[in-house]
Amino acid sequence: MTVDARPSDSVESSGFRSVTAATGQPEGGAFAVHGPADVAAACAAAEAAFDVYRATDRETRAAFLERIADEVVAIGDDLIVAAMRESGLPRARLEGERGRTVGQLRLFANVVRAGQWLGLRIDPALPERQPLPRPDLRMRMIPLGPVAVFGASNFPLAFSTAGGDTASALAAGCPVVVKGHPAHPETGALVAAAISRAVAASGLPAGVFAHLVGPGNDLGAALVQDPNIAAVGFTGSRGGGLALMKLAQARPVPIPVYAEMSSINPVLLLPEALKARGAALAAAYVGSLTMGAGQFCTNPGLVLAIDGEGLDAFVTAATGGVGEADAQVMLTTGIQAAYEKGAAALAGGAGVETLARGKAGNGSTQGQAALFQTTAEAFLADKALGHEVFGASSIIVRCRDEAELRSVLAGLEGQLTATLHMDDGDAAVASCVLPLLERKVGRILANGWPTGVEVCHAMVHGGPFPATSDARTTSVGSLAIDRFLRPVSYQNLAGALLPAELRDDARGDGVPRLVDGVLSAN
Amino acid sequence: MTVDARPSDSVESSGFRSVTAATGQPEGGAFAVHGPADVAAACAAAEAAFDVYRATDRETRAAFLERIADEVVAIGDDLIVAAMRESGLPRARLEGERGRTVGQLRLFANVVRAGQWLGLRIDPALPERQPLPRPDLRMRMIPLGPVAVFGASNFPLAFSTAGGDTASALAAGCPVVVKGHPAHPETGALVAAAISRAVAASGLPAGVFAHLVGPGNDLGAALVQDPNIAAVGFTGSRGGGLALMKLAQARPVPIPVYAEMSSINPVLLLPEALKARGAALAAAYVGSLTMGAGQFCTNPGLVLAIDGEGLDAFVTAATGGVGEADAQVMLTTGIQAAYEKGAAALAGGAGVETLARGKAGNGSTQGQAALFQTTAEAFLADKALGHEVFGASSIIVRCRDEAELRSVLAGLEGQLTATLHMDDGDAAVASCVLPLLERKVGRILANGWPTGVEVCHAMVHGGPFPATSDARTTSVGSLAIDRFLRPVSYQNLAGALLPAELRDDARGDGVPRLVDGVLSAN
Repeated sequence: MTVDARPSDSVESSGFRSVTAATGQPEGGAFAVHGPADVAAACAAAEAAFDVYRATDRETRAAFLERIADEVVAIGDDLIVAAMRESGLPRARLEGERGRTVGQLRLFANVVRAGQWLGLRIDPALPERQPLPRPDLRMRMIPLGPVAVFGASNFPLAFSTAGGDTASALAAGCPVVVKGHPAHPETGALVAAAISRAVAASGLPAGVFAHLVGPGNDLGAALVQDPNIAAVGFTGSRGGGLALMKLAQARPVPIPVYAEMSSINPVLLLPEALKARGAALAAAYVGSLTMGAGQFCTNPGLVLAIDGEGLDAFVTAATGGVGEADAQVMLTTGIQAAYEKGAAALAGGAGVETLARGKAGNGSTQGQAALFQTTAEAFLADKALGHEVFGASSIIVRCRDEAELRSVLAGLEGQLTATLHMDDGDAAVASCVLPLLERKVGRILANGWPTGVEVCHAMVHGGPFPATSDARTTSVGSLAIDRFLRPVSYQNLAGALLPAELRDDARGDGVPRLVDGVLSAN
Repeated sequence: MTVDARPSDSVESSGFRSVTAATGQPEGGAFAVHGPADVAAACAAAEAAFDVYRATDRETRAAFLERIADEVVAIGDDLIVAAMRESGLPRARLEGERGRTVGQLRLFANVVRAGQWLGLRIDPALPERQPLPRPDLRMRMIPLGPVAVFGASNFPLAFSTAGGDTASALAAGCPVVVKGHPAHPETGALVAAAISRAVAASGLPAGVFAHLVGPGNDLGAALVQDPNIAAVGFTGSRGGGLALMKLAQARPVPIPVYAEMSSINPVLLLPEALKARGAALAAAYVGSLTMGAGQFCTNPGLVLAIDGEGLDAFVTAATGGVGEADAQVMLTTGIQAAYEKGAAALAGGAGVETLARGKAGNGSTQGQAALFQTTAEAFLADKALGHEVFGASSIIVRCRDEAELRSVLAGLEGQLTATLHMDDGDAAVASCVLPLLERKVGRILANGWPTGVEVCHAMVHGGPFPATSDARTTSVGSLAIDRFLRPVSYQNLAGALLPAELRDDARGDGVPRLVDGVLSAN
């Protein structure tokens, strides 16, 4: 549902305005600030809608997701224009992001249809078994309940109102209450209205979806604490994610929080690759680093390599590339300020050399790329050098040898990704570090850059803490649906009372089942 | 590994003795009390063993689990005798529990072999895709790391040292550090030695398994806080589980806790069933309630029914049955004292009538069954009437009508199970309450009793908080392995560097794969 855009009983009821990223100035009309009463109403409506929504058949739910995709497309260029203004991101990027957003909804529609997420398991009765007969047991996954989704600033479409968290929660059968990101209220309102049109057109209860907005943190806190909320999806800062985790754990009934928080995405340049194509790697690295003003969760913020001529050539080329990088509009002035503060802190770190800064920006809205280097020893001595600086900042850590490189890796916090640049001659080193990388990250790439995150079945956009709050999950790709499901077992229930997909006559419906431990694909 | 049974640097280093349940008196020699240094050593050894253990092929790991089963069987009657003495449970029950324990290990051996837990997903590269090519992405599940398992007192074999948590964690590829339950140190030591023999016979690093014992809570706290521990399995009290959850969340790196804590397992007697066989239901109910002195997580602690002659007949018969129930030795004097305190609190509750107490026991070691009744109104007015009393205590809640019955259900906390006793004529009522039950419990049974928990593929022994700390999981049945796994994605990794099961030449190995979203069963 779209909560009425009237001022609410919140203390911050005076409305807030959408800010144009490039100027840092408010523009256009004011948006209502939703308060505690709006949160309670939206969550109660979500709870009231839950049993109806979760009972929808797979085709109805899939068609609903596709309808959302269609409605988002139908907004047309207004959506791109609004997102450009509010995020400062360029048209091509946002058009691509819209494609990803609707592609994601359509992927989940097909996931819903395929039904693997139902996790069907059937252990038929064994009435003659000794010493005791076995009862008939059947299991399926059911949705957790209403989900709170926090829109992210850096993907105003794909990780926001109709982003991956919303798509996967709706696919699972959970109503969604979005806390829209205050950096793009106009974009969010357009998308929320599209979702609400899809809800209505699909004949679903309005409570299946709600969109709440406001500039402060109180709104999100109230949402996570609402007793009707059963799980939380969040993409944002480490501080924000940790705060939500704490709130969720302190509830009378704790709930899972899927927070994607912090990652510097180590890139390992192995010796043979570095020798063969150091300069080319540097050019690609600078491209990945500065794309979208570096505002990616998977931005390559850390480069690890062993000292030598190859690394020298890489550093020289990367230094030149970053030095020529244009300043870029960042998402908000707050993010720009935090970026500059983080870059300054890195620059002042013991043993850290500033290799390059990009071209100067206009001060408060544009970010200036930054490249640093240090030694493994200095990096290991100061944990702060391994903290994420959200934006186009990266640090190259020079290691004396493979052992030192492994020490740096072993000392890292959990990450979303790790990248290996390697040639055939690097295979032995790569084999040696792979088990270590598996312990630290959710995705391991070879000879690519981490900033592209494919939306598919085999993607893991997740990883050990603090990359995320729950390494057992991914927030991108079809496995993301599993975050919002839990198993229920039915023992000796008469066929007519069983969920349709667990009845004997449902066999052959194309949904995989584990029957007595043997998997049948349909 | 079996940590040396020498006194350690713990402050509680004076040793502790095994207590005979029937007498409440210590008997036999003293057991070492493990302290902080033992915890650190065991967890460091587990971490050191992890990469070797997780790299074992499926057959090696499966054979290891089967070897543990064989070694447990090979202990022979000494194990049963020790467990009888320490737990007070009868021989037949413990022989059955041993069968379940080794059956569970063998089930997980076959689960490991079948490989579905690997969650293999392959999205092949699409080099020609527009606007951007798709990289090759492959996913598998890997184990989380060393797991701390807390043995439970009420199943000294099946939920303890070599119980379901240990079996599923080892199956996942995680080393295990058990905190043995101090109520059965002799039983625990026999089983731990059997596991360590299996570790050695399988050529695995000793750190794959450790067993720590001691009478206090410090040991468990240190274990959960150890930086090498990646997850926790626990079956026990609500207070104990909540304390571990808090410790785990407060770590620098929070870890998942799978705590099974508290459940009163509502049994609904629907009108037609009650009319047709109220007395027979009462006899079976008393049997389920008093079996094993009522010391089951799935004990039927709450009966819900609509007022009428059928319920009157049930109550009369159940009152008679409980009144004739013999007192039974409980697991520990502490549990017996807590049981009597809980039963006394229920007896003193506003609007609660004591229908029957079983035959008197010997005071400090035997529990005396207890049956209470109250009205829905009184039950709804006092949350404490819905708290678990661990032992053979149950309360019958008389509802005026179906609406009141639904109100009572809606007000319940999360539970492991809910049971429907019903005849054909009850189908409409059953259909109406099923969605509510699904929200509250992990397993729904018809016309049975919740105290039997089948170890199979479709079992859910779990449920919403506070039944467990994580409703997304089960602690019994083959799905329990998923608790200790997380996904890792490999992008464009050369075949030789990929895990064996993700290589192209592994196709046809019998392990299910999702290829481009299509499931193949092998």
